[in-house]
Amino acid sequence: MKPYVIGIDMGGTNTVFGIVDARGNVIASSSIKTAKHSNINDYIDELYVEANRIIVANDAVDKIHGIGIGAPNANYYTGMIEDGVNLPWPTPIPLADLVSQKFGIPVAITNDANAAAIGEMTYGAARGLKDFIMITLGTGVGSGIVINGQLVYGHDGYAGELGHVIVKRTNGRICGCGRTGCLETYCSATGVARTAREFLDIRKEPSLLRNMPIDEITSKDVYDAAITGDALAKEIFEYTGNILGEALADFVTFSSPEAFILFGGLTKAGDLIMKPVKNALDKNILGIYKGKVRVLLSELKESDAAVLGASALGWEVKPV
Amino acid sequence: MKPYVIGIDMGGTNTVFGIVDARGNVIASSSIKTAKHSNINDYIDELYVEANRIIVANDAVDKIHGIGIGAPNANYYTGMIEDGVNLPWPTPIPLADLVSQKFGIPVAITNDANAAAIGEMTYGAARGLKDFIMITLGTGVGSGIVINGQLVYGHDGYAGELGHVIVKRTNGRICGCGRTGCLETYCSATGVARTAREFLDIRKEPSLLRNMPIDEITSKDVYDAAITGDALAKEIFEYTGNILGEALADFVTFSSPEAFILFGGLTKAGDLIMKPVKNALDKNILGIYKGKVRVLLSELKESDAAVLGASALGWEVKPV
Repeated sequence: MKPYVIGIDMGGTNTVFGIVDARGNVIASSSIKTAKHSNINDYIDELYVEANRIIVANDAVDKIHGIGIGAPNANYYTGMIEDGVNLPWPTPIPLADLVSQKFGIPVAITNDANAAAIGEMTYGAARGLKDFIMITLGTGVGSGIVINGQLVYGHDGYAGELGHVIVKRTNGRICGCGRTGCLETYCSATGVARTAREFLDIRKEPSLLRNMPIDEITSKDVYDAAITGDALAKEIFEYTGNILGEALADFVTFSSPEAFILFGGLTKAGDLIMKPVKNALDKNILGIYKGKVRVLLSELKESDAAVLGASALGWEVKPV
Repeated sequence: MKPYVIGIDMGGTNTVFGIVDARGNVIASSSIKTAKHSNINDYIDELYVEANRIIVANDAVDKIHGIGIGAPNANYYTGMIEDGVNLPWPTPIPLADLVSQKFGIPVAITNDANAAAIGEMTYGAARGLKDFIMITLGTGVGSGIVINGQLVYGHDGYAGELGHVIVKRTNGRICGCGRTGCLETYCSATGVARTAREFLDIRKEPSLLRNMPIDEITSKDVYDAAITGDALAKEIFEYTGNILGEALADFVTFSSPEAFILFGGLTKAGDLIMKPVKNALDKNILGIYKGKVRVLLSELKESDAAVLGASALGWEVKPV
């Protein structure tokens, strides 16, 4: 097997990519602006030129086993970005074909959370685990489910949207998906900010969070207040962690994973969020699973994680 | 491959078993009393004598590929019944070893709902499906999850307990598992009877169900009333189906199945339950899955289903 893979993390604004070895070292990386090109072929051309530059500079020509791409709504089965997403080109986009034809290297694509799960299994906290669930806590809540060592794609390629499990059936928060009460409206970074605004509105006690414009409060502000001991801010994390832990307990009944791996901005809150998550999981879990399921933090450096996750998919492609 | 398997459905009262061919025909069947023997070895001995009688009578000696057993809390990985269950012997019971040593035939075991899923995939409504979820609606609610053509056992062998997903976080019904609000407290046959008692207690309108002692009402009584047009009885099924459909919509976000297969006593209510299930699924499902997931009824005859389900596992055993 060739010694390197390329991981490409394609976002609406930037596309970051890197050459990665089998131990998860990012040998070299670079990026281009996604939104700069109104024509997808111009984008692919620039991606190729810039990636090839680092390939040549690092003596990696003919040493790339495969290319993995993490992209919004990317379908592993079809190699397409099928749905309307925040990208400057009309969908469906035959992304895997376009990139593999340009590079002459086999390509696999999936969404970011699935890529994160494969990355964690290949290089991170899930090494050696065959049954685990990755939960990404960022702007939204994403998930990648691994069963028996294999990522779950489902019959259509879109399995693992656990951020859209309904956690409040009545008076739930409005979600970007058009429904109400989804997990991600509570347990994402934006969910924490929404909780802060709700709490500040309903409750009367003093809080450092009252010193800033209520509509500008971010999860980072809540964290900053909580670590100085602000009681209301700490309660916001407890509320968030409790909802997440309850949801995780339900997820266990599905695939009986040995661990959850949490990743993303919210996990920086450390014990402020992890303790209530673990407590609620333990309190709500069905008896036969009790004490069997660990909650772990991602072991991938956040700055590299997206590229590493995507790159891990590059090991799974079949040679053309 | 040898032409037959044996399926054994082990219940607390009776153990039913049969010889099954590759097309799902039950060539011959019989049963013994489970609870008759206080010693597990006496039970295995009688099972062997009685099964061997039908094997010989049907010219099936040396023609049995494997034995599959469906039993409460049976663990596929360990071959053991590990937990306290309604059986007359101390646990753990090394059931697979005991039976395979006695019969000289390889044995695999799992719980009833998993066996039902494999049975449906081998002989029934799930033939040709690689991603589906079996939901059994009996005294409780069980489930068997198939992803990519493989049953999901989870890291400990106990995956697929969807009857214990929490559907009511506040004021939920007490469940036999010791928690509250589990799906099976609403959507099992006993759940329907509980709903009937609740509705009759709270509501004032007339109903045929008021003609019987409230504590003796069964789901069958509710069905009988509903098909004569009793509005309250029909509403009980709508309430039940709605909760189940909401839960199924959440399950889709996990494994994106192409179908749910419903099995068990409650499905006899036909459209009374199927319509609200399908409506609630359609209404609550995340956009990307809309219109992709079918809700099907089991195609296995209920009297044979447990033996057929168990037998299907018999095809999967490796020769000793």
